[in-house]
Amino acid sequence: MTTAPWRDPALPAAARVDDLLPRMTLREKTAQLYGVWVGAATDGDGVAPHQREMTAAHDWDALIASGLGQLTRSFGTAPVEPALAARALARAQRRIAAANRFGIPAVAHEECLAGFTAWRATAYPVPLAWGASFDPELVAEMGRRIGHDLRSAGVHQGLAPVLDVVRDPRWGRVEETIGEDPYLVGTLGTAYVRGLESAGVVATLKHFAGYASSAGARNLAPVRAGVREFADVTLPPFEMALREGGARSVMAAYTETDGVPASADPRLLTEVLREEWGFTGTVVSDYFGIGFLRTLHRVAADGAEAARLALAAGVDVELPTLDCFGDPLAEAVWKGRVPESLVDRAARRVLRQKCELGLLDEDWSPEPDGPLELDSAGNRAVARRLAEESVVLLDNPRGLLPLAPGGRIAVVGPRAADALAMLGCYSFPSHVLPHHPGVPLGIEVLPLLDALRAELPNAEVTFAEGCGVSDADTGGFEEAVARAVAADVCVAVLGDRAGLFGRGTSGEGCDVADLRLPGVQAELLDALAATGVPVVLVLLTGRPYALGRWHGRLGAVVQAFFPGEEGGPAVAGVLSGRVNPSGRLPVSVPYGPGGQPWTYLQPPLGLAGEVSSLDPTPLHPFGHGLSYTTFAWEGHADDEVAEIGTGGGHDLSLTVRNTGDRAGAEVVQLYLHDPVASVTRPDVRLIGYRRLELAPGEARRLTFRFHADLSSFTDRTGTRVVEPGELELRLGPSSAQTRHTVRLRLSGPVRVLGADRRLRCEVLDTAD
Amino acid sequence: MTTAPWRDPALPAAARVDDLLPRMTLREKTAQLYGVWVGAATDGDGVAPHQREMTAAHDWDALIASGLGQLTRSFGTAPVEPALAARALARAQRRIAAANRFGIPAVAHEECLAGFTAWRATAYPVPLAWGASFDPELVAEMGRRIGHDLRSAGVHQGLAPVLDVVRDPRWGRVEETIGEDPYLVGTLGTAYVRGLESAGVVATLKHFAGYASSAGARNLAPVRAGVREFADVTLPPFEMALREGGARSVMAAYTETDGVPASADPRLLTEVLREEWGFTGTVVSDYFGIGFLRTLHRVAADGAEAARLALAAGVDVELPTLDCFGDPLAEAVWKGRVPESLVDRAARRVLRQKCELGLLDEDWSPEPDGPLELDSAGNRAVARRLAEESVVLLDNPRGLLPLAPGGRIAVVGPRAADALAMLGCYSFPSHVLPHHPGVPLGIEVLPLLDALRAELPNAEVTFAEGCGVSDADTGGFEEAVARAVAADVCVAVLGDRAGLFGRGTSGEGCDVADLRLPGVQAELLDALAATGVPVVLVLLTGRPYALGRWHGRLGAVVQAFFPGEEGGPAVAGVLSGRVNPSGRLPVSVPYGPGGQPWTYLQPPLGLAGEVSSLDPTPLHPFGHGLSYTTFAWEGHADDEVAEIGTGGGHDLSLTVRNTGDRAGAEVVQLYLHDPVASVTRPDVRLIGYRRLELAPGEARRLTFRFHADLSSFTDRTGTRVVEPGELELRLGPSSAQTRHTVRLRLSGPVRVLGADRRLRCEVLDTAD
Repeated sequence: MTTAPWRDPALPAAARVDDLLPRMTLREKTAQLYGVWVGAATDGDGVAPHQREMTAAHDWDALIASGLGQLTRSFGTAPVEPALAARALARAQRRIAAANRFGIPAVAHEECLAGFTAWRATAYPVPLAWGASFDPELVAEMGRRIGHDLRSAGVHQGLAPVLDVVRDPRWGRVEETIGEDPYLVGTLGTAYVRGLESAGVVATLKHFAGYASSAGARNLAPVRAGVREFADVTLPPFEMALREGGARSVMAAYTETDGVPASADPRLLTEVLREEWGFTGTVVSDYFGIGFLRTLHRVAADGAEAARLALAAGVDVELPTLDCFGDPLAEAVWKGRVPESLVDRAARRVLRQKCELGLLDEDWSPEPDGPLELDSAGNRAVARRLAEESVVLLDNPRGLLPLAPGGRIAVVGPRAADALAMLGCYSFPSHVLPHHPGVPLGIEVLPLLDALRAELPNAEVTFAEGCGVSDADTGGFEEAVARAVAADVCVAVLGDRAGLFGRGTSGEGCDVADLRLPGVQAELLDALAATGVPVVLVLLTGRPYALGRWHGRLGAVVQAFFPGEEGGPAVAGVLSGRVNPSGRLPVSVPYGPGGQPWTYLQPPLGLAGEVSSLDPTPLHPFGHGLSYTTFAWEGHADDEVAEIGTGGGHDLSLTVRNTGDRAGAEVVQLYLHDPVASVTRPDVRLIGYRRLELAPGEARRLTFRFHADLSSFTDRTGTRVVEPGELELRLGPSSAQTRHTVRLRLSGPVRVLGADRRLRCEVLDTAD
Repeated sequence: MTTAPWRDPALPAAARVDDLLPRMTLREKTAQLYGVWVGAATDGDGVAPHQREMTAAHDWDALIASGLGQLTRSFGTAPVEPALAARALARAQRRIAAANRFGIPAVAHEECLAGFTAWRATAYPVPLAWGASFDPELVAEMGRRIGHDLRSAGVHQGLAPVLDVVRDPRWGRVEETIGEDPYLVGTLGTAYVRGLESAGVVATLKHFAGYASSAGARNLAPVRAGVREFADVTLPPFEMALREGGARSVMAAYTETDGVPASADPRLLTEVLREEWGFTGTVVSDYFGIGFLRTLHRVAADGAEAARLALAAGVDVELPTLDCFGDPLAEAVWKGRVPESLVDRAARRVLRQKCELGLLDEDWSPEPDGPLELDSAGNRAVARRLAEESVVLLDNPRGLLPLAPGGRIAVVGPRAADALAMLGCYSFPSHVLPHHPGVPLGIEVLPLLDALRAELPNAEVTFAEGCGVSDADTGGFEEAVARAVAADVCVAVLGDRAGLFGRGTSGEGCDVADLRLPGVQAELLDALAATGVPVVLVLLTGRPYALGRWHGRLGAVVQAFFPGEEGGPAVAGVLSGRVNPSGRLPVSVPYGPGGQPWTYLQPPLGLAGEVSSLDPTPLHPFGHGLSYTTFAWEGHADDEVAEIGTGGGHDLSLTVRNTGDRAGAEVVQLYLHDPVASVTRPDVRLIGYRRLELAPGEARRLTFRFHADLSSFTDRTGTRVVEPGELELRLGPSSAQTRHTVRLRLSGPVRVLGADRRLRCEVLDTAD
């Protein structure tokens, strides 16, 4: 008996699938198009369908007889020892493979937003902290480590990164994003994808697309956006992560834009994604997202109609149920309501990916190929470095920071003594452990209070909680104020508690009506500021909060966005001066709590002006961040003017010198200002950046290789063009500050760009 | 010498203009395309260019030598006796006519948002109050009176109505709108247009289009909206007012939508407006709006480019300057940058309208044709009735209202003793008189305190202001609380001060970051509610404010939206019971101050759900309002089900009976619920209504003549269609309450609708 062509690893994947598909029954094909949620048995003996409110019970044997497309979160559902969970997954995979005629196992997927969402796995800083680092290389290294750990556990696909661009900071999932600028989100998200994919794990870009723009920042609320905003703000990070990062999967967003749900939008999922961008991977649904076409969007009358819409639009896999792609889809095909060719199209994509993952090979084995160490020292070192790079020093007007090594320090606030203050909503401890009271975190996470005591052994550190994160009780204010008054300096540690669906003040489903600090933390800070003792405000949050109320009243302000398991020592290091802060804001910090939505990407009428009583100018602009050292920007021509064609480029050079006495990092940012265009354009937008570590006295020469493609935008006809005319390239340390301007004149015709357009500004970095 | 054809009133206007245009020089043609702002000399001796920051000085004689398109606000700029102002305008018109070769006078335009914006002219309730009345007949009568008064003063064009649909109640101009529902805005706006045009005055629909949707509710900020929202929410009131109301002018909005400024949008101003809707009138700019293409939108490099863009898009007249359509346009035509055909196209429209207005006739005379009485008893009666109909009784849980005729009443609050509390931002006293301190209002306006004392002569009425409208001083709380404690009932009169650009808490440029009551009024109300004395909250505002904080703590809540010069007696009448309240909310009253934007037009995911911690459910829904009497809804079939074609209709009938012992008005509202559609649809939306005055015991039969066209919407391709399938017609007293449901099944093909689609649900009203 010869091996069937579809089993032959020497053949191209497409050919193998072409051979396999005709051999499969309709049920066998549709079975490849859904996943089920499984929970690993804690004894490592297997997995079983995970019973939740939203998932129906299934007979496991009957279910897998036709095969199974995906297995959902055998690690990410309950606290199971990783080695046991891996063994259970492997057994489940053997069982699935054995149950279907072709021996095909499932793709196992897990969440990995900021680390593998599994018990005892490293909790890295959240994506908003990556944004603050402006460090794609380090993010790629983290991605590689996450990928390695997933792979070693038998997981094939990771449901990350989130490439949504923040459009309203009130949204609960802001912590999961990389910030409010598409270029920053695109470059860092692409770095993460490169890392994950380099380990052989399928990266899943989400949420495609528009999810962050929900009206009023209410999770899943309809998106009011036009085609140009969508094309120029929402889509670019996805395009970059596909073209440059090689991501092999995309998750269709829950949301609708202007009445059309993403999961039922062929323009988005097929025309843009596949025909324009050339994507050949799989599109998976967000959890329960296909059923939502019926229940929440009401564009489908029943499950079969929802399946038809999703499949026709380009969704290939339903997660984590078979509510629509199970019986309803098969029956609809039998009845002629859905053409079988649509099933074949999706099955072909799924099977090709399984083929590429080796899951169709005869020598496939589900056993992990190495020891399982999900929180290695190497991981922790990267988590530490990324945490350190992500801490943003917002304000330090009188040099209160770094703190003196001795003296009396009153640490106050509800986030000081809680290890969970470091972790975001998709960390395993915040995401899963609330359902398992009494189970330990599984990883070492030092609260800031402990870290600071370790950091400053000669200081006398006292502590008072002051108040809770979100409750209204002010009973602890008195003690907190007394502690502050008795100290030389007060470190107020305020912020969010990450959690799901109302259990937190930040995280999925934890949206807010305005940007006041949660609970009575603002009142606590008022009380502390009123003591006259210098106050260092440390924020451990998932979103920016309005800080204008305390402008000029605080000694220093440090912003960290859920910095992960090594966040405590990282922030403590910034306070002590061991770490020189180098983070830059990936989101604007607003002055007042109302008036949202607003981000820095505004045409002139979106900025402060005389026509409205509201001034949206933020307290701290996008890109802002201070250092303990000083940098000089030298060696560039003043009032540089150049002329290039609409297809040309121009190099901008400058030398950055560390003129202080400590090592530190500067982040040089390149912004584009387009004075006149055929549609309104943001006053400035980021088109390039480079993070630069410099020893005292050291200087390096940076050359930004601007290309005209970077000035492109979507014109009135929906076409991406470069228009001739004037441009200003502005180099600065934030979006609101310019150190060097180059005036360019672009000559020649309007240039229409295609899918080969340049997406990125290269930066050369040489010794001065 | 024979009369030239263009002078011949027997010829059609188009033919006359065809004869005239070739005789004119370029300068003479462009001169017809702009207006200048004039201020009437207070001695009635003429007008002169009005010198303001934003308008350049002109040599009047040189200016008018080529003619002049428009004269801006000779009445609405300074407090001048109307008879003098009319005489001055007439003299200016004679002079303009005499100065140009063809003897053509200007079109004189004025603001007339809620009455002729002139000194001593009637200040009617603001449009948001018309919305609360649900009474198109009365609004039409008001429009007719405003038109008559304008006409009698020599004014040809009125810059009203505002047909913007509220999308974010934080916007300062909400008071100028008719509410948050396109059908309500369309029907009442059309009634106003019919009235104004019936008097021979050109109505100007504004702001075309999208202006109310500015991001963050900041005036003029960019609009983020997609094509479907624009087509289904923003445009319908304009379409109705053109097709049914016969408005002859449209004002291009300042704003941009998705990057394209309205004033430079040929799709909007030419394709939709003229080619789809068949509009043949003039499009005028909003004040300075063409120059804004250069300065605020930056889609034009200079004034000539701005002129070209606006003219090409379809703007015919620049107001109130000649910054772009003056020298820059003429020079651009000479240089070949702008084709003269564009000038001709606009000039043809302007001249045809002048022709229709009789301004090209040999017997044209600028002298007013009758006595000038701008605040007649008839006007005041209509202002009174509209004010009465617009007061909304939001809450009266224990029947505290109407007040007893005697007893001790403490009237408290910063809006009780101020006549200006009754007037909106475009009333002459609020709009102009702040620049003329010491000049009296010019009309009699009774503050609520005075009106209530007159209304209840046997009551002992005390008063304390408590606090200012918008300042932070709480020094008056003590006295206010003392007054309340000493009374049987406390009437707290809170709300807005209308003003322009930061001078008010409501009005143009007076946008707010959240929906808290201004200043310390919330704290004052807290203090009053805490006394235990029953509190009647009376709100005199320009927008809805969040009232959830006091839910269940107040004796009664009365909402009036700047009810105009007769507002005092009208509100006092509601408090005393002389007037039975019958207003219904044209905007939702939110529970909390944050979380905006939100209006009731939401698909399921825009409503409360489990996926967000934010619950946007308003405290009082759109359409809500109570009465002192009770109504029974009778005589309809239960569980009615019917089948019609996608081009068919269905009649719904019911009998409404006044079952109480006072006369009163019920507003029967018809909402459409579309369970499944090809794009997401609002859960409910208003498609018909009827206000019904009923004596005690009286009953009337209403028949709503639903037609399938009313279920139409814009599909994914941008086409307006009626889709087959299920529909629910819901009759109720508000958007959140249903008394009678008819389930319809629409059969047949998808129907594509054209410009002849039915816009309105007729309602038959017969004796029972």
